[in-house]
Formats: sequence, C-alpha cells, structure tokens
Amino acid sequence: MTHRYTRAYTGPLRAVVFDWAGTLIDFGCRAPAAVFRTIFTEAGAPVSESEARAPMGLPKRDHIAAVGRTPRVAAAWREAHGRDFSEDDVDALYEVFLPRQIDVVGQYAEVIPGVVEALAAARARGLAIGSTTGYTRDIMEICLARAAEQGLTVDALACAGDLPRGRPGPYLLWRVLTDLAVYPPEAVVKVGDTPADVEEGLNAGTWVVAVAACGNETGLSATELAALPDAERTARVDRARGVLARTGAHVVIETTADLPAVLDDLSARLARGERP
Amino acid sequence: MTHRYTRAYTGPLRAVVFDWAGTLIDFGCRAPAAVFRTIFTEAGAPVSESEARAPMGLPKRDHIAAVGRTPRVAAAWREAHGRDFSEDDVDALYEVFLPRQIDVVGQYAEVIPGVVEALAAARARGLAIGSTTGYTRDIMEICLARAAEQGLTVDALACAGDLPRGRPGPYLLWRVLTDLAVYPPEAVVKVGDTPADVEEGLNAGTWVVAVAACGNETGLSATELAALPDAERTARVDRARGVLARTGAHVVIETTADLPAVLDDLSARLARGERP
Amino acid sequence: MTHRYTRAYTGPLRAVVFDWAGTLIDFGCRAPAAVFRTIFTEAGAPVSESEARAPMGLPKRDHIAAVGRTPRVAAAWREAHGRDFSEDDVDALYEVFLPRQIDVVGQYAEVIPGVVEALAAARARGLAIGSTTGYTRDIMEICLARAAEQGLTVDALACAGDLPRGRPGPYLLWRVLTDLAVYPPEAVVKVGDTPADVEEGLNAGTWVVAVAACGNETGLSATELAALPDAERTARVDRARGVLARTGAHVVIETTADLPAVLDDLSARLARGERP
Amino acid sequence: MTHRYTRAYTGPLRAVVFDWAGTLIDFGCRAPAAVFRTIFTEAGAPVSESEARAPMGLPKRDHIAAVGRTPRVAAAWREAHGRDFSEDDVDALYEVFLPRQIDVVGQYAEVIPGVVEALAAARARGLAIGSTTGYTRDIMEICLARAAEQGLTVDALACAGDLPRGRPGPYLLWRVLTDLAVYPPEAVVKVGDTPADVEEGLNAGTWVVAVAACGNETGLSATELAALPDAERTARVDRARGVLARTGAHVVIETTADLPAVLDDLSARLARGERP
Amino acid sequence: MTHRYTRAYTGPLRAVVFDWAGTLIDFGCRAPAAVFRTIFTEAGAPVSESEARAPMGLPKRDHIAAVGRTPRVAAAWREAHGRDFSEDDVDALYEVFLPRQIDVVGQYAEVIPGVVEALAAARARGLAIGSTTGYTRDIMEICLARAAEQGLTVDALACAGDLPRGRPGPYLLWRVLTDLAVYPPEAVVKVGDTPADVEEGLNAGTWVVAVAACGNETGLSATELAALPDAERTARVDRARGVLARTGAHVVIETTADLPAVLDDLSARLARGERP
Amino acid sequence: MTHRYTRAYTGPLRAVVFDWAGTLIDFGCRAPAAVFRTIFTEAGAPVSESEARAPMGLPKRDHIAAVGRTPRVAAAWREAHGRDFSEDDVDALYEVFLPRQIDVVGQYAEVIPGVVEALAAARARGLAIGSTTGYTRDIMEICLARAAEQGLTVDALACAGDLPRGRPGPYLLWRVLTDLAVYPPEAVVKVGDTPADVEEGLNAGTWVVAVAACGNETGLSATELAALPDAERTARVDRARGVLARTGAHVVIETTADLPAVLDDLSARLARGERP
Repeated sequence: MTHRYTRAYTGPLRAVVFDWAGTLIDFGCRAPAAVFRTIFTEAGAPVSESEARAPMGLPKRDHIAAVGRTPRVAAAWREAHGRDFSEDDVDALYEVFLPRQIDVVGQYAEVIPGVVEALAAARARGLAIGSTTGYTRDIMEICLARAAEQGLTVDALACAGDLPRGRPGPYLLWRVLTDLAVYPPEAVVKVGDTPADVEEGLNAGTWVVAVAACGNETGLSATELAALPDAERTARVDRARGVLARTGAHVVIETTADLPAVLDDLSARLARGERP
Repeated sequence: MTHRYTRAYTGPLRAVVFDWAGTLIDFGCRAPAAVFRTIFTEAGAPVSESEARAPMGLPKRDHIAAVGRTPRVAAAWREAHGRDFSEDDVDALYEVFLPRQIDVVGQYAEVIPGVVEALAAARARGLAIGSTTGYTRDIMEICLARAAEQGLTVDALACAGDLPRGRPGPYLLWRVLTDLAVYPPEAVVKVGDTPADVEEGLNAGTWVVAVAACGNETGLSATELAALPDAERTARVDRARGVLARTGAHVVIETTADLPAVLDDLSARLARGERP
Repeated sequence: MTHRYTRAYTGPLRAVVFDWAGTLIDFGCRAPAAVFRTIFTEAGAPVSESEARAPMGLPKRDHIAAVGRTPRVAAAWREAHGRDFSEDDVDALYEVFLPRQIDVVGQYAEVIPGVVEALAAARARGLAIGSTTGYTRDIMEICLARAAEQGLTVDALACAGDLPRGRPGPYLLWRVLTDLAVYPPEAVVKVGDTPADVEEGLNAGTWVVAVAACGNETGLSATELAALPDAERTARVDRARGVLARTGAHVVIETTADLPAVLDDLSARLARGERP
Repeated sequence: MTHRYTRAYTGPLRAVVFDWAGTLIDFGCRAPAAVFRTIFTEAGAPVSESEARAPMGLPKRDHIAAVGRTPRVAAAWREAHGRDFSEDDVDALYEVFLPRQIDVVGQYAEVIPGVVEALAAARARGLAIGSTTGYTRDIMEICLARAAEQGLTVDALACAGDLPRGRPGPYLLWRVLTDLAVYPPEAVVKVGDTPADVEEGLNAGTWVVAVAACGNETGLSATELAALPDAERTARVDRARGVLARTGAHVVIETTADLPAVLDDLSARLARGERP
Repeated sequence: MTHRYTRAYTGPLRAVVFDWAGTLIDFGCRAPAAVFRTIFTEAGAPVSESEARAPMGLPKRDHIAAVGRTPRVAAAWREAHGRDFSEDDVDALYEVFLPRQIDVVGQYAEVIPGVVEALAAARARGLAIGSTTGYTRDIMEICLARAAEQGLTVDALACAGDLPRGRPGPYLLWRVLTDLAVYPPEAVVKVGDTPADVEEGLNAGTWVVAVAACGNETGLSATELAALPDAERTARVDRARGVLARTGAHVVIETTADLPAVLDDLSARLARGERP
Repeated sequence: MTHRYTRAYTGPLRAVVFDWAGTLIDFGCRAPAAVFRTIFTEAGAPVSESEARAPMGLPKRDHIAAVGRTPRVAAAWREAHGRDFSEDDVDALYEVFLPRQIDVVGQYAEVIPGVVEALAAARARGLAIGSTTGYTRDIMEICLARAAEQGLTVDALACAGDLPRGRPGPYLLWRVLTDLAVYPPEAVVKVGDTPADVEEGLNAGTWVVAVAACGNETGLSATELAALPDAERTARVDRARGVLARTGAHVVIETTADLPAVLDDLSARLARGERP
C-alpha cells in the first residue's frame, strides 16, 4: 500500500462510568478502610492507615492479598505467625471481612455533596451513567438502596465477583459499556478516586477523571477535612492530586461535584481529534 | 495542577483475535454470500453479489436487515411487495436463512492455507488466540469441528447471539479479551476480512490487520482467484486492499498466512510508544 | 548539523478550487451518469447506476476505461463480444460519448442553490476562485455560458484534455494555481463531490472539502432527494459522507452552500500550525 | 461525522528535481555572481559579493530587482542617480545582463564532481530526474550542451521565462512534475544550493536537500575552497549550512555527490509515515 | 508572519549528571535514612522507614521540614509537644542532623558495583561527568575522598548549600552545566534514585534516567536485597520502578551499571528529533 | 517497564527575561554598532554596518572576535597587517572598545516607547522580570541608572563577564532564573532583538519572543525608521522578522510594547500542553 489511513473518533461523549465508595458515596472512602485495619489487627499484624488504603479500588479479596504482601506487613506477619502470608490466610481474612463490611457499609453510604446534580447534568447532555466497584453485589445491594433514598441511581453496575477478575483490569468497565451499548472507549469518561480506578479506565482506553478530596487518597470525612488547618488541608489534597495525576488521570478535580465543567473540556478535546 | 502526565503502553503484544469465515476458514467468504443471494431471490427481490456481500461481518440477522435497507434493494422490494421492507421481513428471512446456512457451512469450512502455521507462530511468541464471528453458536459448532480436524483451534470464541449486539460494536471482542484475561487493547491485534471486522477492532482500541485476498472483499475461492488473468487478479485484490485500508486497518496483508511478519512490526511500533 | 529546523505555513487561505458537475452545477451530477449508462447499454453491456458512477471525476475517457475494467462489466463485455474490453473499445465509446454529453450537458447546468453566495463569501475574504473538471473544454464552454447567466464565474479553469493527464493526479490543480499565482498548497481548499476530487486535492497537498448531498455519491437531483422518506435520505447522504471521509476529505459538508463556515475553521487550524 | 480520517503517503520516492548552477554544474555558482557585480558597477552603484549573491536562485530579472531594492544599494543608487531605483532600471540592467551571461556561462559549466554518479544512483532506484533553474532557456541551451558532453542529462527542465513567475514559487517545479507525471509532492526531493531553491521545494510540499559547499552560499570554486585554511573552510561551509537549514531544508549535505545516502534516509522516513 | 519555524536539537549527548547517595555510592541510600529516623525518635516523634525516606533527594534541611510536615508526623509531633512542628524545630533538628550525618557517611560510601565502568564508558563517548547532591559540601568532602580511593571522580559538583535553593528545582544542575560549559538541556542526562532527582532533571529540561534497585526507593543494601526471596525482591524493585516512572523518568534501570546501553538509545532518540 | 509516563508543564508563565540594548532601551541598538565600526576602522580594516552588527548579542569581546573572523574582514585584516587576525588583536581591540562604549552608552539609553507599560502588564499578571546582556557590569551601571530615571527597573540582571561564558549559551539566563527562583524553562519567556538572544532562550528551553523593529536587525533609530518610505520601512522590518523567525523565535513582534498580547497567547499554548 502506498498510503496509510488513520481514523480518529471526533464524536460526542456517550457515557460516564463511576466508582462508588469515595466517588459517589462515602466521602473519604472510610467504610472499607476501617474494616481492613480491624481484620489485620485481629489477625495479629496491625497495619497503618496508609498500608490499609494503598490497594483501594481492587476487588476486596485482592485488596486483602495486596495488603498482606506489602513488604513491611509480610515481614510482620512472618514474625507473628512464624510463616509466610498465604492464600489460605487471604481466604480466612476475606471470610471475616465480608460480614463486617456488610454490617457497616450502610453507615457510610451518604451521597457525596453535588453528586446528584452532577449526574443530572451528565444525563442532560445525553450521557448514559454506568458504575463499577470493588464491592461485591451483596454489599452493593445496601449501597444502592441507601443511594436511591438520596436520589442517586445509575443505569448499569458491575461488581467485583460478577466476573473472575476486576480492577485494575478493564473487565467490569467493558461489561458496563456492553450493558449500556456504548462505544468507543474514547466516548467514555471513567470517574474514580483511587489509582486502581485510574488504571481501570486507562486499561480500557477511556478518559479518566480522578477525584482527589472526597476519596481514598485524602481519606478523611468531609467534616474531618474541613476541620484541618488550611495549609494542612491543601497539602493533603495536593498529595492526593499528585498520586492520581502521576498514575495517568487525564484530569484531577476536587470532588465529583466538579465534573460538569470537565465534560465540556473533554468534549472540546475530542472534537479536535485528541484521544484519551 | 501544573503538570499533565500521560501514560503509554509500551509492553508486548498479548493476544490475536481472529474472525472466522474469510479469515481462518472459507477462502473467499463464500458460505454466507451464496445463502444471502438465494433467500432474497426466493423472496422476489434478487440482489447482486456485491449487494449481498456489502454488510458482511455483521451478525447475520443484522446483515439481512442491512441488505434489505440498501436503497436499490429497498426500492425493488417495494415494487415486488407493494410495501416497505420491514422488521417482520427480516425475521422471516432470518428464519429461512439459519437452516440453509447450517446446511452448507460445512462445505466451506476448509482452513485457509498457512493459517495453522500463523497461529503456531503467534502462540510461539506467547500470544493468546481469540476469535469472534457473525455466525451464531450452532453454526460455529460445525465450523469448530471441521477446523479441529484440520489442526486449527482457538482459546476463546464469542458468537453473534452470545450478546444482544455484535459488530461493528466491540462487545464480542471485549468478551473474548475478558475470557482470555488480556488487556490493554493496545496489546491486542484483531484480524479480519471485512469493514465490519476492521471497525470492531478500532471500536475496541486494538490494532487491526485486514486480509485482502482470502476474504469477503475479493470474494473468490483460492481456485477462482488463481484462475484470473494477472492484471484482473491484482485489480480485484487492490480494490479490496483499498476498501480495508480506508476503513482504518493499520495493516493490510494478502492472507492470514502473512501475519507473523506483521506481529514483529507492530511490536516494534508499540515499543516506540505508538498506539493503534 | 546539530539542529533540525522545520517551517510550517501559518498564513491565510488564498484560493478555493472547485469541481464543476455535482459541486458548482448539476445537483446530483446527473449529466454524465446518464450518458455513460446509455453508451454501455448500446454497446451490449449494460451497467448499473453505481457502476456507471464509481469512477466519476476522472477525465471522461479514463472514466469509460475504468467502467469497462470493472470486474463484473469486463466479464459481461467478454460474454457479449467474445473478447476482452480493449483500448479500441475505449476510443470507440469515447467517440460516441462526447457529442451526446455535449447534447445534454446544458440541460443539467443549473447552479446548485447557495453556490453563488458561497463564492461571494470566499471572494469577500480575499480568496481567488479556481476550478478543475473532468469535462473537456468544449463541454465546459456550454457550462460556463449557462453558469454566467446565473451569476457564477470563476477566475481560472483547467479541463480534462488541457494536459496529458488529469485526476486523480494533481496536474490540473497545479495548472490552476499557477494561473492564479497562488501557493503554498496549504493555503488552498479543493472542493469536490467525488473520491477522484478528494484525491486530486490530497495529491497536491491542499485542504479538501467534500460535498455529500449534491454530488455524485448521493446521485439524486435536489427534487428526488427531497422526495425521499427522511430515513432513506439520511441513509443515502450518510453513505456518501462515509465514502468521501474515508477517501481522506478533511471536512465533509452537505452542499457547497455550507462552505463559508468551513473556511473559518480551516483558517483557524492553519493559524495553529496544522497542515492539510 | 463522528470520525476523522487522515491519509498519509507511505510509498516510494519517485523523482529528484535539481537546480542547475551551484547544484549540478558550476561549483560555487560563480557564473551569475560575476555578471551581476559587473552590471551594477557599470551602472554606477557597485555591490558587494554578498549583496550580489543574496537573491540567487530567483529568475534573473527578479534577481536584479531584488539587488537594486536592498536598502544599502537602493540608497547608493539614489545617491548616484538622484532618483529611486525603478522598474525601468531593472529592464535596462536585464537587457545588459542577458548577453553577458550567455557569453560567460559556458566557461562555468563544468559538472560538479560526483554528480553524474549521484544521478545514476537515483535512476537505479527508479527515480525520474527533473530540473528547474533561474536561467532562461537560451542560457540553458548552452549549459545542456556542455553538460551532455560530460555525461549529464535530465528527463525534464523548466526555465525562468517558461512561466510568468518562478522561484521562490513552486510553479516551475509543478511544471516539471507534470512533465514527469510524478506525484504526490511527498514522493519528490528538490535539491538546490540557495534559499530560493529551498523555498521552491517547501512551497510545493516536497522534501528539500540543500548543498552547502558547492553552491552559492559558500560561493567559491572547488579550487578556491580547497585552498582555504581548514578552519576558514569549515567556517564558510558551516555558515552556508546554517543559512540553508534555517530556511527549512530537511537535510543539508556538502555537495550533490552525497545525495544517495540521503535518499535512503528519506525513504525510511516516508515509510514511517513522516512528511516533508 | 506567514510561517512558523521550529528548531530541534539533534546533536550528540554532551554530559551526564549524577546524584551521589543511592546512585554513585551507598547502595540503598542508607546513610541519611538512618540518621533521619534517629533524630525524630530522639525528638519524641518516631517516624517509619518510609516516612523518613519519602522526601529523599531534597537538601537535608528541606528534607527534615518535609518529614515534619507529613500529616501523620505533624499530628504525632503536636501530640508529643503540645504545639505544631515549626521552623525552629527544623533548625534544631538540622543542627543535630549535620554532625551525625558527617559521623556516619563515610561508612556508607562504598561505590555501587559497575559505577566506575559506567563512567568510563560515558567518558569514552566524550561525555562530561557532573554531579549534584542534597548533601552539604562538608559531608561531600568525606564522600569525594572515599570515592576517589575507589577510582570514582567527577568533573563538577554542586551541593545543597552552594545555592539558596536546591532540588526539586534545577538550580544545582544549571550550576553544574555552567561549570561544564554544556548545553542545551537536551544534550544532558540526569541520573538519580529519587523522585526529587527525577524532578530536578525534568525541571531543567534534561533526559532523566532513574535507578530503581540501588537507591532510596528500594532502600536496601546490596546484601539485604540479594537475601530476599525472589518474588519479594522483584516486588520491591518493581514498586520502585513504578514510583520513578510515574514521576516522569524517561528510562528506569536496575542500577547505574546499566547506564551505557541507555546512552545509545537516548542518542538515537535525539537523532530522530525526539526531545526529553 | 510496560508503560512510558510523560510529564508536561501546563502551569502559568512565571518570568520574562529581557535583553537590554535594542529590547528595553536604545531603539535600533545603535550604541554598540557605532563603536565596533570605529575601532575596526581605526585598526585599518573598516567593516560595513551589517558586518559590525551580525554577531550582536554576544559578550562584546566575543563580538569583536566574531567580526574579525568574518571571511571578508579576515582577508582585509590579512591584507592590511600582513598576518592573520589573532587573539592578541581581539584583546587589543577590546581594550579600546570598553572605554569608548562607556563614553557613549548613556547617550543611547532612552527607554523604548511602551516598555515601561509592558513590564507593568507582565508584573500585573505575577511575572518576575529578569534581564541578561552582552554588556559588562560597568557599562550596565550607566544603563541601569538612566533606565531608572525613566521608570524602568528589573528584578534580576546577569551581565557578560559575570560568568566565564555568555550567549548564545544559556548561562546568564540560568543565573537570572536562579536569582528569581523560577523554573521550569517552559514557564519563562526570553525577549530579545538578535539571533544570539533567540539562541540563548532556545538553549535554555524557554519561549522566545523576538522584537524586529526596535532592535539590531533593523538597526535604525525610531526617528530614522519613521522617516523611511513605507515600502522600504516594511521591507527592512520584514527582513528582520525573517532572520529572527528562522533562528527559531516562537513569536516575532514589532517592539517590546507588543508583548502583553503575546503573553496571553503563550499562556494558552502552555495550558494546552504545548512546549517551547
């Protein structure tokens, strides 16, 4: 062939796919963090807040495995138990984790301020609303019910456990886009609060918007965050911004409430022939 | 944020996903073409070879609808039946189509020369082998059996009918990549013989390699193609090359047998930071 | 050298060069289509509307040769005449073609709605107006006279036959730019209705704007097009859009009347350092 | 349209188009420089070597006008003649220039070492050989005859005066490509020794290779250049390289003898999808 | 202006500028880590290994300030002292830090295996060897002496304290390039083991090569690293690779010994017109 | 690594760094030009205005060396002195140059119209104001005093002689940015009137804005320039624009008064992820 032809998508955005805890509900992504610390402490190998939160966004069983394989934790486990952290330990901890998570998740299911309005704005421009999560479906039943009471509903949902593998793979996201009948990935915006969320979107080829202040990387409730001295609050949120940007998020915003302006900007970039 | 961070995949290729008729088996993609012409003729609205082949690659029910909505065919149908071509007509024709396709598909299931070797080469470099098709699963049962007899097997398959929508959407391809546990799309090569195949790959974000001589766009058996005068054979294949390149295939080759060299080239482009 | 220097044109647009039939006059590009079908029918090898139109935009003698070499037509000719379609056949058909084209061309020379205004707008921003055509100069005498009656004039014209070779080569376009004393190609917009028009512009390095609804690819008079059911009209024009975009047109519009807004957009892209 | 399609030429190089004096013959481009200085001196407004050479490459009448409009020369002319340098002065000087140029051009028509071999190498890879020049056709008759004696012939030639306008416009180059039936510009390499040559190629969209040591920008015969102290020779040629590179030449080489290796490099860049 | 001209550096690499601890000497960057932990512990606010190491690469006074402002440490300090961590605390800790660092630095000054050979290879290709460090000059006196005993010398050095500000700013790097008389930044490779090193290079516009296994991000001596189970060693080094790559290092290697091959690759990228 | 991460600065502009003569003061850059011509004439080798001005922007001692090494001047010197122009000659001329420059520089220190307002505008958007110069510090004492009387002050200044090497190297600019505590280079705009100024900025990686009408390349006082016939004035300034653009200036403006609009444009380009 004497010519090369290249096709670029320049059409409209068609869907937004959200993470749940730390993005739509549970400012600070506190529900799972607390349970992870508890189960490791009870197992004789206490972990720090930042160790407990680092793999956030993964399916919860994978999350437990990742915490246990953190070098410092692995060493502590070895010391406490006289043997390496194993797949059996993961299973045992996961069995403890699930009921506890179910017990408390409803207490952390408050919708993040501005989310209902942001979804309305996205729907007003014709976008479908999907969602993926590292929670299992039975945990999500509680969240969906609590969210609906507050006026928040989505058009599609894929949970950890619905497929053999979850984040950082794009599988749950592909499932949601299949359910929404939306493509190509360039027409989709993934919104989430963790590096695992960012990677899920990048691994599918979508735009990625990360929320810094209301999610796992800042890790404080709205009240706790507001109570910090200004400099400290800025420093914490900026650190979160840096982590999410360096992972590859195309845009980092404070909270999901700031999404509508970003949709305008991404639409303009698409129209110019830019790709995520 | 004062900086923008961009992530590019520079790792290895991880999977090849093939179309079936015209790509792996059935040189010339003749099995479905013949049946489509028969059912429209019997319905009183004969269609030309090129009209019958134009939407090739779509799920077969969608294919029938597309032929019937071709302006010239729509007009002929209106003349023959005194009314517009309708969804009921699609259903009726599809009901006739399926058994006929099943009857003949086995006769056209010869593996295209060089395909077994090309798959072996891909596997030797560690690639998983997936496949998608516009055929339904019951038609594919016959093809899989015949292919296996000739030494051809794949690691994953998604058929029209497995999901509510097929090509040119990326849904079947996403399903196959989920089954193979392979991502990102940049690590995947879609290989097919029709514009619908090319678009399926582009819509998922994969590399796309199109085969010009052995597929629907040339539309002749290996014997028929070989029997043409040189200039005519070149002209036909060049026309097919042009159609596939303009649709956006990254590379167009003669037949699937030429794939291994392309995999080297695409690997080098990935390593340099190029994207599909 | 330790540095590489790159120059990019960022100046204003300087000329627009139009095709004639299907772009400036003759909505649907019907004048030549009818004559081509007639002469092949009379020669015992009838061709379909789409076969007759496929090479539109080429010099008319080349067009006849291209139709005769279409695989299906070549086979039909062989059957009808007992020998291959030859250069002598091209000459004979062309001898018949010319007087017939001259006979009817005046009946199809109505200026496309909005064209006079579009040229006025282009001139108002200082652009020279050139034109190229697959018609010979004697056919064009008739068109120029009829166009002038309707208020349409151009600053330069190059016809098939003025040079040994025409489209898809850039020769006629270069001749017109030489006559207009305009360069570089980045400052020029070619406007046409056929793949051959698009390629003429790309082969010279100009911007290319294709018109989908009023030209050969839709192939209907304004009245016929307006009479179609909405869905069918949209489908026909969209198919035309797709063909022209995939050939490489930078912008595809409905009719030449829509040109002025595109000139603004292309000027902005030039100013940013983009190239055609 | 929801997609943008872009076509890039990735085929082979098809032609090289050379300038004559300073590129193919007349090492140092000395024939015209001497005559320009003589006629201005005789007209009472002597010009320096660098003033005489600055517009080299333009048609000779335009060259005279450009020298006369150089600020310092214009001031000197005003002082010497009591009036501004005018179009009539250009005509008068040009009338003197032509016969003198014809008188001496044959003495400077030695082919530059390595040129015959470089053209043979270009032809061996299938390239057509064109040429353009700021000389008029009657001057070129002498050059062509002298070149042929030394084994140098070209396939096409366009001279100043063949068209109303010459360099830095692309008109002569387009004429030559029309005669050679070669396109697109991306398949063409312009080779020359002056900024006007570089701009002619850029204005047509071709690749441009500039020769620094054997042309106008160094401005010395091969003997004179060889006689310079090493540092001075390097400094002069480097200054020439800088001028030609900053004008936008894609590659700058010592002399035309070095062309063959550049053709390999440009072919590789084309194949990767790079454009001039 | 009707044209835009762009200059790109395509010349050779001219210098490599190294960090010291963790890059040239002190495998694991252990000398400062130990002292930081000690002084915070003694001040009643013990810090973890990862907290102590996070700001590594900064001038040491800035490093102490950064550790003290880490949210968890700031809270612990507040609890221990009943007041916020202040500039006076930074001064007090820094006064304790310096003599302790001087005491121990000599014990950690072993040259990293392969470094002497890598510098010899860089010098053999004509590169100047510079260095910057977060150590003060009196600490560096000890390191330079110990390094020289092992055959390691550099051509230029800028230390924290030589200028009012250090990393992540580019000031020390600019000072070194001024001393080496080397420019542009595109001709320079910064090599370091911390995010602060990576940012210093990016902020100056140089290429950045990060070393993952021998530096602060892995944080183990060569012996400790070798003693880890394979999977754990790979996991630790991969985590370090990820941190350094996401910060923006152009290339991440195991240790400085692997530098020579990277210099070949970066030279090739420069020659193609790529920039850091 | 399977991914490549790229960081781009998208923050605000932070500083502008100006050249002095021909940019901030001394419309036409006439102070040094006159002295250079005088000292060469007195040394028996008169130089033209354009020879005297060509290396403008370099440190003055380097400037003298560059003029003396110009091929024509070198030859004239050899003829006049019977030996090559040497380093001793440079020293001798420089010794004469300095006191003469000091004598006259105050007479040419008028601030260029609009400069005070342009600096105020830059400061109003938060930019620091730096400066570099080819003048030595004792010459600059006079200029600074005269400028201050007219309301012009800068935040930082580096002079020829402050460092061992000056322009076209980036050393003085790096020194100024160190004093201003500003980085990265992408946040900086260098403004100057000579090719040496342009290269200083490019060699540091900053944006470069060149002033064409008020500087060395036009070389006339405001009064002289205004007195020229329109066509001649335009021609002179356009020639200056061309020289500065081809050297690589990102933007060329008439005088420093036009800077504020350019700052808006460069800010927008930074925000889109463009780099200088």
